[in-house]
Amino acid sequence: VGAGPGARDLLTLRAVERLQEADVIFYDRLVDEDVLELARRDAERVFVGKVVGASAWPQERICDLIVAAARQGKRVVRLKSGDPMLFGRATEELEAAAAAGIPTEVVPGVTAACAASAALGRSLTERGVTDTVVFCTGRTREGDARPDWMAHAQAGTTLAFYMSVGQAGEIAASLKAGGVDGSVPVLVARDVEKPTQAVLETTLDRLAVDLDALGIGGCSIVLIRLPKAVRVEVAQPVSMAS
Amino acid sequence: VGAGPGARDLLTLRAVERLQEADVIFYDRLVDEDVLELARRDAERVFVGKVVGASAWPQERICDLIVAAARQGKRVVRLKSGDPMLFGRATEELEAAAAAGIPTEVVPGVTAACAASAALGRSLTERGVTDTVVFCTGRTREGDARPDWMAHAQAGTTLAFYMSVGQAGEIAASLKAGGVDGSVPVLVARDVEKPTQAVLETTLDRLAVDLDALGIGGCSIVLIRLPKAVRVEVAQPVSMAS
Repeated sequence: VGAGPGARDLLTLRAVERLQEADVIFYDRLVDEDVLELARRDAERVFVGKVVGASAWPQERICDLIVAAARQGKRVVRLKSGDPMLFGRATEELEAAAAAGIPTEVVPGVTAACAASAALGRSLTERGVTDTVVFCTGRTREGDARPDWMAHAQAGTTLAFYMSVGQAGEIAASLKAGGVDGSVPVLVARDVEKPTQAVLETTLDRLAVDLDALGIGGCSIVLIRLPKAVRVEVAQPVSMAS
Repeated sequence: VGAGPGARDLLTLRAVERLQEADVIFYDRLVDEDVLELARRDAERVFVGKVVGASAWPQERICDLIVAAARQGKRVVRLKSGDPMLFGRATEELEAAAAAGIPTEVVPGVTAACAASAALGRSLTERGVTDTVVFCTGRTREGDARPDWMAHAQAGTTLAFYMSVGQAGEIAASLKAGGVDGSVPVLVARDVEKPTQAVLETTLDRLAVDLDALGIGGCSIVLIRLPKAVRVEVAQPVSMAS
C-alpha cells in the first residue's frame, strides 16, 4: 500500500480502507506516525526500519516476516512511502508472497516527485518546454553500475532524482561534464508534506554547495529541468570512475 | 486537484476535502462520474471537455472560465485525471490564476503509470534490473519536434508512455531502428481502475498489430522495460521523418 509523501491526508481512500482492515502493518521509517493512526487501534504495527542509506532490516527478513504473518491468517499491509512500484522494492515482496501462495493487491500512491512538484507549484511537464520526465536515483544496488544520468539529460526533459542528495555533487559533475550548462535551474524539496518541509532553488553549479550549506539531506527530491530551448551538447562519450 | 486514475477510492483524502469545499468544479472527460459524486450536491459541475486527441475546449477558454469563477468569489476546483503536474497543462492554468491575483493550491494525485503498474502487479523499478523510469508521450504540441524516445531507451530503464496508443507503431519502429530488440516485452494497460480495464502483454514487434487487433486505444499506458541485461546498440544516429 502506497502511503504517499507523508501527510496523512495524501493517502487514498483505498489505502485508508486497507489500513483499517489490516491485522498487522509493516512500515518504514519514512511513514509518519500520523498515518498509522488511520489503522485499527488493535492492529499490530511493526517497524521494519528501512532508512535511506542504511538497512538495519535486510529485505529478505522483511519478506519472511510478511509471509509468516500472512500464513498465520493475518491480513497484512506492507505500507510504503510514496508509490510502492517506484523505488519500493515491491518485486521482492510480491515474489515472496507469490512463492508462498499468498494473494496480494497493490494500492498505488502519490509518488514523491509529484508531491514535490505540487508543493513547489511547478509542473513536471510544460507544453512546448518539457514533455518527458525521468525518475531516477543516485543510489543503486551495491556493485551495480551507476545509472547513466547523462543519457537521459535531453532537452525537453525534467530529471527527478529520488534519494540522491548524497550523490548531488556527482550528479551535477556528470551532467556538466556531459555538456549541460551549469546555470540550469535546480529545485530541491526536502520532507515534502511534513512539518520539516524545505525548498531550495539553485543552479547545477551551486547545487552541492547549497545543499551542504543548508544542511539539506535525507528524504529530498531534486528536480533538474532541461527546457527544449537549452541545447545539450555532448562533445564525446564521458567515462566516469565508479 | 489530481483525481487519480479513475476509481473513486483512489482519490486522496485531501482531494475529497477540496471537492467538498468547492462551489464549482471544472472537470475533463477522463474523470469518472463517480468521482464527482464526492462533491457537494449544490456544487456547479462544468465539463470542459478535454479528450485525448481532440480539444473542443481550447486551453485559453478553460483558463478564462477558471479565473472568472474565482473572481466571483467562488471556490474553484480544477479536477484533473491522474496527477495534475504530469501531462496536465497545469502551468497555463496556474499562470492565468497568478496573473489575476488568485491564490492557488495544487493537490497531487496518483498518476496513471503507477496505477497501471499496480494493476499489472509489475513494479516500474526493480533492483538490479531497472532503476530509472521515463514518463513520456507520443503526443506533443503541434509543430514541436517529437521527443527523442531512443535517447531514453537505455538499459536499466522502464519507458512509460502516456496517451500514446495512436503513436505505438512509430514508437516501436523508432526504438527498433535505434537498436532495441523487437522481442522486448511490452505491457499495455487500458482504462486502469475503470470497469473497462484491459491488459495486453506483447512484444515491441507485435505491439501495433496487437493493439489494433484488440481495438485498444484511448486512455492507455504502454510500459516498455529495458533490463540492464539487454544491450541497446545504437549503430548510428537515426533520422526520422516528422
